[in-house]
Amino acid sequence: MEERVYNFSAGPSMMPLPVLQEAQKDLLCYPGAGASVLEMSHRSKSFDDIINEAEATLRRIMNIPDDYVVLFLQGGATLQFSMVAMNLARQGDTMAFIKSGQFSTKAMKEGERWGNAVCAASSEDKNFSYIPKVDPANFPKDARFLHFTGNNTVFGTAFWQLPQIPAEAKANGCRLVGDWSSAILGMDIDVKAHDLIYAGAQKNIGPAGVTVVILKKEILEQEIDPVLPIMLRYKPAADARSMYNTPPCFAIYVSGLMFKWVEQQGGVTEMERRNRIKAGLLYDIIDNSPLYTGLAAKEDRSLMNVTFTLPDKELTAEFLSLCQSRGMINLKGYRSVGGVRASIYNGMPLEGVQLLAETMKEFEASHK
Amino acid sequence: MEERVYNFSAGPSMMPLPVLQEAQKDLLCYPGAGASVLEMSHRSKSFDDIINEAEATLRRIMNIPDDYVVLFLQGGATLQFSMVAMNLARQGDTMAFIKSGQFSTKAMKEGERWGNAVCAASSEDKNFSYIPKVDPANFPKDARFLHFTGNNTVFGTAFWQLPQIPAEAKANGCRLVGDWSSAILGMDIDVKAHDLIYAGAQKNIGPAGVTVVILKKEILEQEIDPVLPIMLRYKPAADARSMYNTPPCFAIYVSGLMFKWVEQQGGVTEMERRNRIKAGLLYDIIDNSPLYTGLAAKEDRSLMNVTFTLPDKELTAEFLSLCQSRGMINLKGYRSVGGVRASIYNGMPLEGVQLLAETMKEFEASHK
Repeated sequence: MEERVYNFSAGPSMMPLPVLQEAQKDLLCYPGAGASVLEMSHRSKSFDDIINEAEATLRRIMNIPDDYVVLFLQGGATLQFSMVAMNLARQGDTMAFIKSGQFSTKAMKEGERWGNAVCAASSEDKNFSYIPKVDPANFPKDARFLHFTGNNTVFGTAFWQLPQIPAEAKANGCRLVGDWSSAILGMDIDVKAHDLIYAGAQKNIGPAGVTVVILKKEILEQEIDPVLPIMLRYKPAADARSMYNTPPCFAIYVSGLMFKWVEQQGGVTEMERRNRIKAGLLYDIIDNSPLYTGLAAKEDRSLMNVTFTLPDKELTAEFLSLCQSRGMINLKGYRSVGGVRASIYNGMPLEGVQLLAETMKEFEASHK
Repeated sequence: MEERVYNFSAGPSMMPLPVLQEAQKDLLCYPGAGASVLEMSHRSKSFDDIINEAEATLRRIMNIPDDYVVLFLQGGATLQFSMVAMNLARQGDTMAFIKSGQFSTKAMKEGERWGNAVCAASSEDKNFSYIPKVDPANFPKDARFLHFTGNNTVFGTAFWQLPQIPAEAKANGCRLVGDWSSAILGMDIDVKAHDLIYAGAQKNIGPAGVTVVILKKEILEQEIDPVLPIMLRYKPAADARSMYNTPPCFAIYVSGLMFKWVEQQGGVTEMERRNRIKAGLLYDIIDNSPLYTGLAAKEDRSLMNVTFTLPDKELTAEFLSLCQSRGMINLKGYRSVGGVRASIYNGMPLEGVQLLAETMKEFEASHK
């Protein structure tokens, strides 16, 4: 095997080696199937077992209650921006959005195509460097749902407390919808406090190409606009156990291996514990450094994406180049922010973060 | 490696062993990337090379003209049913559909959600056992497009001549749209005679989870209904070279390996030559047998899905069980048809079809 690097990409991102090794071992022939998962009929017993086990494991590690459905869909979080609006609201209805970063802003934009998308809170005033609070006085009482992005990858912020829907809106049936693409399985999430959670796989779940949606069963009974394509409806997907048409079988299979790995390691609580240690190593350096400046408000910091800047572009480039030479890649900050972003999802081993921390310290020492 | 079987599934279906072996070899670390394709950033140089090479190879083997765009999307043919209607027609517009089987009927149903979906030809009268002809006298002159399914997997029929759009409708801008999910790369298809071709990958292209769309560039300039989700529009996908959001990287990568394999074997013409030999072995037996009855009209027979019946359910079950015992699986006919269906896409080796042919002859001899 060629040498693997520490890949700090915001997604797709590193996967644990044992998961890759298991996928590799069975790539020509899945045990008992006589065929690779890449070529296996989704109507076969083998694939039925694979998808059932993936769902069952996810239910255990996330404590998903029985009155929630788990779906494995396609199209990423971006298609969920539309599906949430189109399934939870009728055309023209009011929807509330918390703008806490790039993806939450995109979600609201998709909502605007369908109805009256209202901004219920925003941290745009400070370039999304903190988590904004909902102001009950200005919350639309008739909103069908409140949408938020649990972890914001660009600035590296996270909701450590779920947003609160004001009482009157809640009494009117306003639902809580969380995009947890970049923190699912990386920190404890209270599923039952949400009506719907979705997450693109390519950060903590598995390979790109599958999206997990967890929603209250009762949502499936909502009336749907007849214009809505069958592939944009939750109910047919739920009725067919995510197999209304051919699902992304291999991505679901590898996600199932990831779920099993998380469970074997001690579950999501253990993942969060490890991620706190990993992120802590970096935040400690940032907080005690004359060279590095953290970008996110301290109380809102993400465990998944650690962002910071250096004094100028030249130093940043030099630092990134040093990291690259030591086998640490994709550390460049997002273009709207600059600086450095270390994405350290579940698949990033402690050793990778330790190497980055050492490199940060060395670089600081040599640039006094 | 555990023993691989001959998988006659209608899809997902067999892939050539060299393709699987190459994917396996590089599964932990793609050359030069330091990471598996399963965890590789879609913004990386490595993935850029992968998707560019996949597209370039597909363009070569299908002779795709320069004024066509190639997209790698998600959602399967079923999402294309909706995307075609929603991108090529305005809401309420007229669209024409040829009903030649199960999927073409589903395509029309999705069209009905968006506008005035007219049936331009149907073989429903004989349970879709033949390819129906368009009657110019009854063709809607204002249809925005004519949709057909090039190969019908359930009954095993194929369009050996493309449907003709009557002159007046054509003059009004009616476009030809072909769903070639189950025959793309398995027979020569004249791309430039179409305005849009789409194909779910899981038959001849690669693993489930990616859909290839080939469309005339000028279609991208059509006015789009503002309500249409960003993920259902062709233009943002084309502008971002299929990476508006994270694409199904691994499925695209394996599809690229398949394209390369087809090219190395001699291209699509060679694939069709082999497929004619494979299908011919089975059709010859069917045509000269007192035991087996072919289901599809001879002149419309598919090279991809060979369908036939035995005199009764007991004999069918006995035959299927014999096949299973010899390592041939998924030969059961679709539930609305019964009997036997042998799906023999590019990935099915000649040896598999020979074994099936021998088994058919033996079974016939022992049931005189």
